[in-house]
Amino acid sequence: MMRTPVLALERSGELLDRLRVERPLVQCLTNTVTTNFVANVLLATGASPAMVDIPVEASAMARSAGAVLVNLGTPRAEQRDAMAEAAAAAYDAGTPWVLDPVGVGALPVRTTLAERLLGLRPSVIRGNASEIRALAGHGAGAQGVDAQHGVDEAREAATALALTTGAVVAVSGPVDLITDGSACVRVANGSPLFAAVTGAGCALGGVVAAFLAVGDDVLTATTAACLVYAVAGEVAGDAAGQAPPGVAPGPGSFAVRLLDALAAIDAAQLEARARVS
Amino acid sequence: MMRTPVLALERSGELLDRLRVERPLVQCLTNTVTTNFVANVLLATGASPAMVDIPVEASAMARSAGAVLVNLGTPRAEQRDAMAEAAAAAYDAGTPWVLDPVGVGALPVRTTLAERLLGLRPSVIRGNASEIRALAGHGAGAQGVDAQHGVDEAREAATALALTTGAVVAVSGPVDLITDGSACVRVANGSPLFAAVTGAGCALGGVVAAFLAVGDDVLTATTAACLVYAVAGEVAGDAAGQAPPGVAPGPGSFAVRLLDALAAIDAAQLEARARVS
Amino acid sequence: MMRTPVLALERSGELLDRLRVERPLVQCLTNTVTTNFVANVLLATGASPAMVDIPVEASAMARSAGAVLVNLGTPRAEQRDAMAEAAAAAYDAGTPWVLDPVGVGALPVRTTLAERLLGLRPSVIRGNASEIRALAGHGAGAQGVDAQHGVDEAREAATALALTTGAVVAVSGPVDLITDGSACVRVANGSPLFAAVTGAGCALGGVVAAFLAVGDDVLTATTAACLVYAVAGEVAGDAAGQAPPGVAPGPGSFAVRLLDALAAIDAAQLEARARVS
Repeated sequence: MMRTPVLALERSGELLDRLRVERPLVQCLTNTVTTNFVANVLLATGASPAMVDIPVEASAMARSAGAVLVNLGTPRAEQRDAMAEAAAAAYDAGTPWVLDPVGVGALPVRTTLAERLLGLRPSVIRGNASEIRALAGHGAGAQGVDAQHGVDEAREAATALALTTGAVVAVSGPVDLITDGSACVRVANGSPLFAAVTGAGCALGGVVAAFLAVGDDVLTATTAACLVYAVAGEVAGDAAGQAPPGVAPGPGSFAVRLLDALAAIDAAQLEARARVS
Repeated sequence: MMRTPVLALERSGELLDRLRVERPLVQCLTNTVTTNFVANVLLATGASPAMVDIPVEASAMARSAGAVLVNLGTPRAEQRDAMAEAAAAAYDAGTPWVLDPVGVGALPVRTTLAERLLGLRPSVIRGNASEIRALAGHGAGAQGVDAQHGVDEAREAATALALTTGAVVAVSGPVDLITDGSACVRVANGSPLFAAVTGAGCALGGVVAAFLAVGDDVLTATTAACLVYAVAGEVAGDAAGQAPPGVAPGPGSFAVRLLDALAAIDAAQLEARARVS
Repeated sequence: MMRTPVLALERSGELLDRLRVERPLVQCLTNTVTTNFVANVLLATGASPAMVDIPVEASAMARSAGAVLVNLGTPRAEQRDAMAEAAAAAYDAGTPWVLDPVGVGALPVRTTLAERLLGLRPSVIRGNASEIRALAGHGAGAQGVDAQHGVDEAREAATALALTTGAVVAVSGPVDLITDGSACVRVANGSPLFAAVTGAGCALGGVVAAFLAVGDDVLTATTAACLVYAVAGEVAGDAAGQAPPGVAPGPGSFAVRLLDALAAIDAAQLEARARVS
């Protein structure tokens, strides 16, 4: 387990290097809105994404993948079956897996599915504050898929959820909060433009899975993923201010630069920018 | 109802400001090709997209959303059920909704679905000239999903369709034509690069829904949406000419800059560029 | 059939021009990860994509389309039915069609489907080395969807597969290898950044279909498609080195510039850069 922010920082750089060497296979069962972006973020970071989400194939792959992402953004019936199958196979085979409970609390079908999936012991649960509160039974979730609560309003819920499920819980927002129920890490890097790109959170779920595939300590790997992603976003946001004349840089440029920044990020950039506490 | 282009222009700026303050929830049941782009266009414009398109959840959300978009681009069986459910719930709850009849006339399954959905009284029907003609019974539609008719060839069909359905009809093309069956507005802004980006029309359908969520007059809100989107496209097209050396700017750069332009557009830009008649 | 690289080069420029004049309708039944990118690549190149992939509509369109792409990346049950239907209709109507056997060998459902589709005589089979080996019965495929073999390791398999199926086989990699079972062409253009963009191979499958729609000789048309796409990638990769200060150019910028480069590429650029043997 992580002792200090300095250690977290060192380990993040090491895990990033390992990710690029090992190029772990990350299976994603994710929503139709952001599948492309999640895959591109994983490729840019250094992982090998495989968006395998149909029954029969889903469980076969979950046994051999480095990690699995299950994102509930648009859970069609056939995909729900594949998700249950993949999560069960991951649990059975000891493959780490991430649950991203998009819209849970606000929408009934995925809420039922999330409860079922919790029994298959996700390694990490990553969501926004409203989703984590809803999943912990601390509220009804947001109206839609965007958070209506601040990260700090979800701290208690995150701790409770971590303790009852055994998962590390990562609450995403302007400051990310990551907890295993006792230790609690905050990553203060990022960019306000993350909120203007659809799937920015979903893609972080993929990055968390990629780091789980190369790191054995779940809290450390999750922190590393959040840090790498947030720092890359910060770099991308800064670069957006240096664009050529014409249209002011905004969410379109930011998403493009985020991929470029993820591909280029290294331990030195993490060290120079990290704000972990 | 809108009286003059000047009024249309003033109201467009006001509605845009309101959109950014209220950030309305816009539910989208749309095709797999452009879901990501539609969501990013909505975020850039200032709305909160929720791509909820499975049965049970679709109707729940349509009751509480600010507006609903139903786009027939890739209508899988499960999504067709969700669309019928969402449109019925929207009709029942008084939620404004937009029908985007992609490929209607040319393709049988969606043509049948579109006819069924028309009975649930969409607030706006947005399509290209071939789709509007087909929906009005004035022709067999295009061969594929791209228009094979000019906007003016669809004027009579648009008027007839507006009168029989009670919807505002927006025909997209180099010049957009918007009519409620009596008044007819034309928006002459835009960029030829729109035609080179998949889902440019689909995304406009989303923007129309977003403006419906904040404006009570359907013709005015639809005109404002078409104007904001077309002017942003014009700005993006101009900026494409100012790119750094290397590859000449084209459809890839344009799509990125369109998102940037939508996030930055304001009433002053609308006033400086609008060509409404 | 192509006799020399010089002829291949000349014909490539001619076919590209014809593509832009005729704007052939290319029907795509492809995966959810890259549908948007495939459509945008087709638009940029000059074709008219139609992502029609539901039963009933799929066969109707396959009869009238210029060419059909069947990509097995995320083969849901309903889409599998549509694929079988579209391939049968294409076979029946003489519409050229491309099979892109993503992940075949590694994943059971698509492997069964691919075997069934081979009986419907695809005009071209385009895949990475691992997929072509698996389809030819020369190996078990990759672990995921990325190649684990070099192009040359698939040469024998490609030849065998071409001879048994009657299809032209295109193996994508740092050097593309295209064969009809006797002639064998290599295209050495490209960019290492192709491997960092999800769907770069899937989009090439679409481009091959577009060239089939305008050229009668399958080997020549396939070579032209591979050449145009690879040279555009090379141009895009070069341009990435000339970006404004800020984030170093990477996979995000490359994908954007690839679309710009495809829209701008012409016979002169092909001539200046082509490395065909």
